[in-house]
Amino acid sequence: MSMDFLQIIEVSPRDGIQNETKLLSTKQKLMLIRKAHEAGITRMEVTSFVNPKRVPQMADADIVAQKHPQTLDAIGLILNRRGFERAVAAGLNEVNFVIVASETFSQRNQNTGTFETIKIMETLRTPPQQNIRLSVTIGAAFGCPFEGEVSISRLMNVVEAVMFYQPDELALADTIGVATPRDISERIRIIQRTYPDIPLRLHLHNTRNTGIANAWAGVEAGVRRLDASLGGTGGCPFAPNATGNIATEDLVYMLKRSGLPTGIDLDAAIDAAKWLEEQLGHSVPGQVMKAGRFPMSQNC
Amino acid sequence: MSMDFLQIIEVSPRDGIQNETKLLSTKQKLMLIRKAHEAGITRMEVTSFVNPKRVPQMADADIVAQKHPQTLDAIGLILNRRGFERAVAAGLNEVNFVIVASETFSQRNQNTGTFETIKIMETLRTPPQQNIRLSVTIGAAFGCPFEGEVSISRLMNVVEAVMFYQPDELALADTIGVATPRDISERIRIIQRTYPDIPLRLHLHNTRNTGIANAWAGVEAGVRRLDASLGGTGGCPFAPNATGNIATEDLVYMLKRSGLPTGIDLDAAIDAAKWLEEQLGHSVPGQVMKAGRFPMSQNC
Repeated sequence: MSMDFLQIIEVSPRDGIQNETKLLSTKQKLMLIRKAHEAGITRMEVTSFVNPKRVPQMADADIVAQKHPQTLDAIGLILNRRGFERAVAAGLNEVNFVIVASETFSQRNQNTGTFETIKIMETLRTPPQQNIRLSVTIGAAFGCPFEGEVSISRLMNVVEAVMFYQPDELALADTIGVATPRDISERIRIIQRTYPDIPLRLHLHNTRNTGIANAWAGVEAGVRRLDASLGGTGGCPFAPNATGNIATEDLVYMLKRSGLPTGIDLDAAIDAAKWLEEQLGHSVPGQVMKAGRFPMSQNC
Repeated sequence: MSMDFLQIIEVSPRDGIQNETKLLSTKQKLMLIRKAHEAGITRMEVTSFVNPKRVPQMADADIVAQKHPQTLDAIGLILNRRGFERAVAAGLNEVNFVIVASETFSQRNQNTGTFETIKIMETLRTPPQQNIRLSVTIGAAFGCPFEGEVSISRLMNVVEAVMFYQPDELALADTIGVATPRDISERIRIIQRTYPDIPLRLHLHNTRNTGIANAWAGVEAGVRRLDASLGGTGGCPFAPNATGNIATEDLVYMLKRSGLPTGIDLDAAIDAAKWLEEQLGHSVPGQVMKAGRFPMSQNC
């Protein structure tokens, strides 16, 4: 991957829709995945293998994971060993294992404490699944809806425990959208200094309007992998007030006009975001899909 | 002004409401000014001296300008010599003279070309008005709704012509919200290199979700004066698709959590934004006013 290429990992089929009360059909989900892929997305969280009683939108995870386009690098989100087994059975080559940095939120999200969850990683490296790519996302890496501040030392304790199991990639998630550009630079740089070889990824929510600024701060700090969701959809069922991810098309707009290629076609991404908005039946937060690209073709 | 202190210039009484079809009463406008001032805003565009037939919301400019709190540094926006005379007659000590970087937009905004408008500055320095502070805002400094791209060379030609008349401050306005952080850094740095002594100010719209990222890029480049509007209100009557300014309270949130003081009380700013939303009778784009501050007092 060139230093200037930004990989956008589309998360709308997972984070984008998981909190919607309206359940999309499997066909709609597969169409969403296809549209995002056709817009140029090459890596995507296609679903999560969680308890369908807790997250009804993800009840068809196994089918969605089997039927995604084969040219796509598809990721399944998992919270535990059971989710891992389902992802492997569905034929996925990559899982994204979520570990929550704060104790209270970890208990609410996956019924185990932070460090107990990390220990599960040992079992995810056992043959015959050792060829499965294992990404780790540290949730609430910048703040917790229940405990408030998450200190850098707490985060680094969690990172150290995670790194012991040698994940293929490490993501920091601002699950409730409280980070500022300074937080991003600070935490990314400390991790880079301590673990210079691990590819870093950011998962940002725009809850307090800092999402795109945080993405830019991440890019400036050297991060080349960013999660985003078409239309700025998203939210976490277990995090109060957590609203949308940064919008894929808004991120593409900023990066494209900053000379940073993503391989994503802005018009196709806008069309896909509008299509998703129609399926959901309510307005979504993306702004470029409303304002239009620039320069516009109608400029005189 | 300390290098770390960020001055936020509140523009809701001018840019924030000028495009609203619902006309606020003079009393409501003065209340808005008072609430923003009480939240810690010390400098504010309180009104604009434009043709009330073109901008009906500003019909009571002269009264608003006379009745603002005396402890506030109040600015009146002007587009021409007539506006200047009205501002002086109303007793204001500062005017913000707008010059639009692109020819087509300049004609639509103020019925004169860019460089003809700049020539008006000569008459604004004539005694006995020489003690009036003269700020200049260059509109469409990053892109034009009619002409599309505004090149750096075009912008610098405009800046050079403006600087000949020695304004007290120079603002770049992203009137239609198309700039990216790279644009901000690039243009600010070129101006700083060419004119190291002029205080710079940014006027940013969040039309394509880049507003807060652009503010951060400006701060990193050394800009210490930022326009913002409570609730993210705003729009330009002569610029198609121009939507809200960056929200004062969202900006304060980001800066405060980045350790940069603004002198503004976040809770009071949120309250003022909510009050303004009620007066306008429709939802406004600010996000911290919806999501709440962080850390929240209810964190356990």
